[in-house]
Amino acid sequence: MIWCRFEREGKVSHGRIVDDEVIEVDGSPINNPADTGVTYALGEVRLLAPIVPPMLYAAGPNHNGHVEGMAARRGAAPNYPKIPEPNFRSVHSLIGTEENIVIPADSAGAVQPEGQLAVVIGKHARQVASRDEALDCVFGYTIGNDVSERVWQGADRTMFRGKSCDTFKPLGPWIVTDLPYDSFRIIVRHNGEVWEDFTSADQIWDVPTWIIEMSKYTTMHPGDVLMMGTQGADGDMVPGDTIEVEISGIGTLRNYIVAE
Amino acid sequence: MIWCRFEREGKVSHGRIVDDEVIEVDGSPINNPADTGVTYALGEVRLLAPIVPPMLYAAGPNHNGHVEGMAARRGAAPNYPKIPEPNFRSVHSLIGTEENIVIPADSAGAVQPEGQLAVVIGKHARQVASRDEALDCVFGYTIGNDVSERVWQGADRTMFRGKSCDTFKPLGPWIVTDLPYDSFRIIVRHNGEVWEDFTSADQIWDVPTWIIEMSKYTTMHPGDVLMMGTQGADGDMVPGDTIEVEISGIGTLRNYIVAE
Repeated sequence: MIWCRFEREGKVSHGRIVDDEVIEVDGSPINNPADTGVTYALGEVRLLAPIVPPMLYAAGPNHNGHVEGMAARRGAAPNYPKIPEPNFRSVHSLIGTEENIVIPADSAGAVQPEGQLAVVIGKHARQVASRDEALDCVFGYTIGNDVSERVWQGADRTMFRGKSCDTFKPLGPWIVTDLPYDSFRIIVRHNGEVWEDFTSADQIWDVPTWIIEMSKYTTMHPGDVLMMGTQGADGDMVPGDTIEVEISGIGTLRNYIVAE
Repeated sequence: MIWCRFEREGKVSHGRIVDDEVIEVDGSPINNPADTGVTYALGEVRLLAPIVPPMLYAAGPNHNGHVEGMAARRGAAPNYPKIPEPNFRSVHSLIGTEENIVIPADSAGAVQPEGQLAVVIGKHARQVASRDEALDCVFGYTIGNDVSERVWQGADRTMFRGKSCDTFKPLGPWIVTDLPYDSFRIIVRHNGEVWEDFTSADQIWDVPTWIIEMSKYTTMHPGDVLMMGTQGADGDMVPGDTIEVEISGIGTLRNYIVAE
């Protein structure tokens, strides 16, 4: 199934997408909502980030290529992560597909994309004991872009400005259920040029491992979103640019760069 | 006004506290809810964390005494923060007063309190231009305990395990409105012994400054909670201990340490 969140005439709803139609439902997809009977053509609605998670987690370094690319840039040896530990992003920085990524006025400009698979949790998960149980906690998958201001990321004590400025977390265009976690192909395109092309099979730790390890310490809640890390280290995006993240079986998340 | 969130017979509600009574309301305090007409004696309800924030921010080092105490422990020079930048905590780690703080089974045991003033935001705040405007965004104040596992905090890449394990964020017992931000006295008591006694006047950056600076990059939302940092560097808490944070004009947040 394909689930979206959309705005139409000022009202925000969730819906199922079937062919080119959105079937409005009466709640969040994670709560098994009923259809309202109202349908729209997909072109008649404005898609939003497909869910507003209670917690937005980022797996951080989860592909060796990203660890190595970022280290090379600093002229340092790669510092591979030893355990899967997430960081947090602000849910207030979420935007949907086709929305603008706004570069803050005082940014030096090193605003870069990180195309990522995003996992939507469907159940309360605590002390998850097996890979099967972990995968049973997955509601579906969507696409994230963990937009990063590299000067602030490097200089600041926390990743607040570096990763969680308003509009820095595009998510969407929708959530797709019933897909295998280990064979997504993830492509990042900058103004149509391929900047990254990698697969979820190359993650340092895979989806069930992250859920098992995180759930040793925290209860994951329905609606939580875990972004699974990116490959490589990309260049700067500047106003006027278009950035796309395409994931096989899901679709394309497309955003536009503008200056504040 | 004093606002609480409580559970009674399995139902979770918000309420106003007047004398020893809880007057149930029909929504969240930040949405100006109406009374339902139902009242309970305060002793008849179980108090919960007084709000579930969309984002739970921690001001991080915001008292020189904490910067210096933590540095002395490492045998390093104090590294004073240069700008007010928050970190994030998991909203899933929130508990209320009188609840148990659970030390994870694989913790080496260095679980320590951080008594903190907690600011509850009442309005959307973005590009806040003045201190008056910032203070107008404050709904009220409550008490937080930024419980920290120091081994994980020091060793891990992120503060996930160090600061956001389940039960590591006691908040409460309630929210009090219409208090001055700059004269709170904050006392931390470990099994009745005073471990810290400090004032919000000694913060490195005060409440309006944090709101102004954060709102340059993020939209603060109604219900967001900002914990304002602690003084000093305290000792370990062990199973059987009681930890209290008292703040003048608000009350006392009391929790009990247990092993997983």
